[in-house]
Amino acid sequence: MAKTTFPTREDNFSEWYNRLVVEAGLAETSAVRGSMVIKPYGFAIWENIKETLDSMFKATGHQNAYFPLFIPKSFFSKEAKHVEGFATECAVVTHYRLKAENGTIDVDPEAKLEEELIVRPTSETIIWSQYKNWINSHRDLPLLINQRANVVRWELRTRMFLRTAEFLWQEGHTAHSTAEEAIEEAQLMHAVYQDLFQNFLAIDGVMGEKSENERFAGAENTFTIEPMMQDKKALQICTSHFLGQNFAKAFDVTFTNKENKKEHVWATSWGASTRMMGGLILSHSDDKGLVLPPAIAPVHVAIVPIFKKEEDLTAIEEYLAPFLSELDRESIKISSAFLGDIELPINIQIDTDDQKSPGWKYNEYELKGVPLRIGLGKRDMENGEFEVYRRDTQTKEIVPARKLTQYLVNTLEDIQKNLHKKNLEHRKEHTYFVDNYDDFKEKIEHGFVMAHWDGTVETELKIKEETKATIRCIPFDNYLEGQTAEWKCIVTNKPSTQRVLFAKAY
Amino acid sequence: MAKTTFPTREDNFSEWYNRLVVEAGLAETSAVRGSMVIKPYGFAIWENIKETLDSMFKATGHQNAYFPLFIPKSFFSKEAKHVEGFATECAVVTHYRLKAENGTIDVDPEAKLEEELIVRPTSETIIWSQYKNWINSHRDLPLLINQRANVVRWELRTRMFLRTAEFLWQEGHTAHSTAEEAIEEAQLMHAVYQDLFQNFLAIDGVMGEKSENERFAGAENTFTIEPMMQDKKALQICTSHFLGQNFAKAFDVTFTNKENKKEHVWATSWGASTRMMGGLILSHSDDKGLVLPPAIAPVHVAIVPIFKKEEDLTAIEEYLAPFLSELDRESIKISSAFLGDIELPINIQIDTDDQKSPGWKYNEYELKGVPLRIGLGKRDMENGEFEVYRRDTQTKEIVPARKLTQYLVNTLEDIQKNLHKKNLEHRKEHTYFVDNYDDFKEKIEHGFVMAHWDGTVETELKIKEETKATIRCIPFDNYLEGQTAEWKCIVTNKPSTQRVLFAKAY
Repeated sequence: MAKTTFPTREDNFSEWYNRLVVEAGLAETSAVRGSMVIKPYGFAIWENIKETLDSMFKATGHQNAYFPLFIPKSFFSKEAKHVEGFATECAVVTHYRLKAENGTIDVDPEAKLEEELIVRPTSETIIWSQYKNWINSHRDLPLLINQRANVVRWELRTRMFLRTAEFLWQEGHTAHSTAEEAIEEAQLMHAVYQDLFQNFLAIDGVMGEKSENERFAGAENTFTIEPMMQDKKALQICTSHFLGQNFAKAFDVTFTNKENKKEHVWATSWGASTRMMGGLILSHSDDKGLVLPPAIAPVHVAIVPIFKKEEDLTAIEEYLAPFLSELDRESIKISSAFLGDIELPINIQIDTDDQKSPGWKYNEYELKGVPLRIGLGKRDMENGEFEVYRRDTQTKEIVPARKLTQYLVNTLEDIQKNLHKKNLEHRKEHTYFVDNYDDFKEKIEHGFVMAHWDGTVETELKIKEETKATIRCIPFDNYLEGQTAEWKCIVTNKPSTQRVLFAKAY
Repeated sequence: MAKTTFPTREDNFSEWYNRLVVEAGLAETSAVRGSMVIKPYGFAIWENIKETLDSMFKATGHQNAYFPLFIPKSFFSKEAKHVEGFATECAVVTHYRLKAENGTIDVDPEAKLEEELIVRPTSETIIWSQYKNWINSHRDLPLLINQRANVVRWELRTRMFLRTAEFLWQEGHTAHSTAEEAIEEAQLMHAVYQDLFQNFLAIDGVMGEKSENERFAGAENTFTIEPMMQDKKALQICTSHFLGQNFAKAFDVTFTNKENKKEHVWATSWGASTRMMGGLILSHSDDKGLVLPPAIAPVHVAIVPIFKKEEDLTAIEEYLAPFLSELDRESIKISSAFLGDIELPINIQIDTDDQKSPGWKYNEYELKGVPLRIGLGKRDMENGEFEVYRRDTQTKEIVPARKLTQYLVNTLEDIQKNLHKKNLEHRKEHTYFVDNYDDFKEKIEHGFVMAHWDGTVETELKIKEETKATIRCIPFDNYLEGQTAEWKCIVTNKPSTQRVLFAKAY
């Protein structure tokens, strides 16, 4: 029987995560510092997330395109804050040829690039340099483009999925004729992400905007979703930016408006990466392994036939056939804000491998977070029963054969809802409203803290230095604003306009 | 009325291609030398090709995964022929940080990498370095993995889609316990590509294997498909390699066989890139623009309502409604070797833009290769008729309203078949069987030449030097072997084992 080799969450949360990623076959490290390999099972989950998000982008009128991996160094300097934000983590291509000499292979010094190329850490600059050709008139707007790509940010401390030198993501880049329309777009995409997280990934984060200090380099405003992981730290899981006219000015992208006057274009960008996979793992998994929401699980039900001889397996397969064709006509219903009521087919895997024991397989499917598992032997068939194991609650139930289909459908839908509910409750349970700095310092060790702040970068940095907590966002949700008599900053006593969310973060 | 600004194929074939790519909104050049931007319409076609191929890979038991963009320089040296083949076209990352000084941005000399990183030109080395951890026993085999990725090859002369410094592709990398099984896999994937080309892209190339000189760097055998473009040059549109044990030995990847002995693993790799888009354009397009096979066209029928007032448009939309819901239940049938008989939904675009004239729109849809176009005005509705323009034959037909649905379905299926037939006939018509070098030199200027060859690299290189033609492949198809009395090399008179295909190529 396969034995999981990772510690419990309580023992060592960080090591539990690292080992789980490997043991569940999601990813592994590579020979390239900070770059991971996404293994087939991890990639299958990623593809489900990616395709769901892609459908939402198309449903909101966006089109996909592809821009170069490399960005000329000079493009970076054109938007001052942007270069400042990314300069220290850029991988730089300086040569375009190797040469073999004396049996060793070396960079050919004669093949030096005149201008170095940056491997994109994000694509605003290269994309806006092209948009100059695409946009002339207000009739060319809005321009609603998304790109799926790999990007590189040379991080010093990396962790699989959460922070890697190379990662996969989508980055939307849109152009608009007014600031209002661009802000609406950034908010719309913020809502699209929320739809994905709540209704598919079963993750409920706090929606809000970033403080000036935490904004994207080059943005006027950044919207974020900040869910709470099981160790009560926050994870910034997606961002959506209103870029004002910054990039349009840097690359001189103008349009002729309805009054026939030239104006600079207004922009947004928004992205979500393989970091979502990290959020998914840190949100729902337990000491036995991964726990997957059915809406994005590659396999919904694993059936393990218990057999010794070939003919026993044949008998089990024959017995299963009518149930499978019934399940083939069923689906898991998901209500999505942007995709409507959709029906997902139920994916069933029958594990007929005779080299591995049922016990080994049970363990493996728990590790891989398959929502439901059925062990099926001769006695079960004689009794007309199925023993169904439910991954999220780790409970077993004996289900009469005639009720199986409905039971599976209902339970999968219930798991989806249950995971979201647990995630939301966990966050609410560990969110504290504090009114003085002493309470803040105590509570910040135990979860999210909602506190009044004077709105200055100075105070924000002081708090960060003293407690390692940052402002995760200025929440939209007004219910969070209550419960206080005085709206004063907990550090400076200066006036505050609302409570903001502080937390330690990944 | 929009006017196409590109020359005819006869005037200047090369310039016709370059302009068409831009005018049809498929791609454009970028500020990065040799890197193109794939625009939304081009990307929509690419996505259809990509998804079709992905379904075929899944239907043949392959899984997707993702490996690092960067490859440590030392990995390259491990397979001698491989490094030799790719060394001169590698983009090299040497630094990982920029720094701003005196208002300019520069590469930080202190942030030099200890070992340079190569931006992957292909991923055999990085993937086989990981497979070492994945494979232990014969039970881990076969390992059937595909990756979708961007790769970089620093080409000196680039052309959009056909040869770009960065391109998108899929690369399959499989591991097997015997040479026979690996060869079968390489042939299977060769057949998968053929299915895609014949039944979806309507391109009929010659299938065969490469001569030693033209093989992939590190392969024991390379299978290729070589279709003829309209200018009668060949385009290598995909390759599938049997890699022997070369990479397994280079990275010491072994498995324990059934007799409990250690052996090196056998490998294949296979890939097809955005070059397929170039092949698609060069195969079917004409002087009016792109011509798309319905199986991969983003839009099948463009309907252009002819209206002046808002109420005219409303009347047209109401008139169309029942036809649209009828078409919604119809589909285009495609027979695929690997996907079976599939049904594609019919995508209809109704162009209600009141800023552009019907004439401008007609031109635009011709340029974009939309298979069918309908202009619909008051008189058509009164007559109960539709005027349907068919892109591939540039013909118009008046279709009674009650026959519209069936007419559109039939015609779309007919266009698909017709394009394939035309493509195959064009190749056959311009394929010459020659028996001496003088005839060879004359005919090679006009198409494909099938000639006897002595099997040596020397003769191959001599022919290449004197005629610029290369051996495109040693065809599988026996019909090509006939029509000769003496099986002797046209250059050296030495014995030949079969005719091989010579052509000038992209």
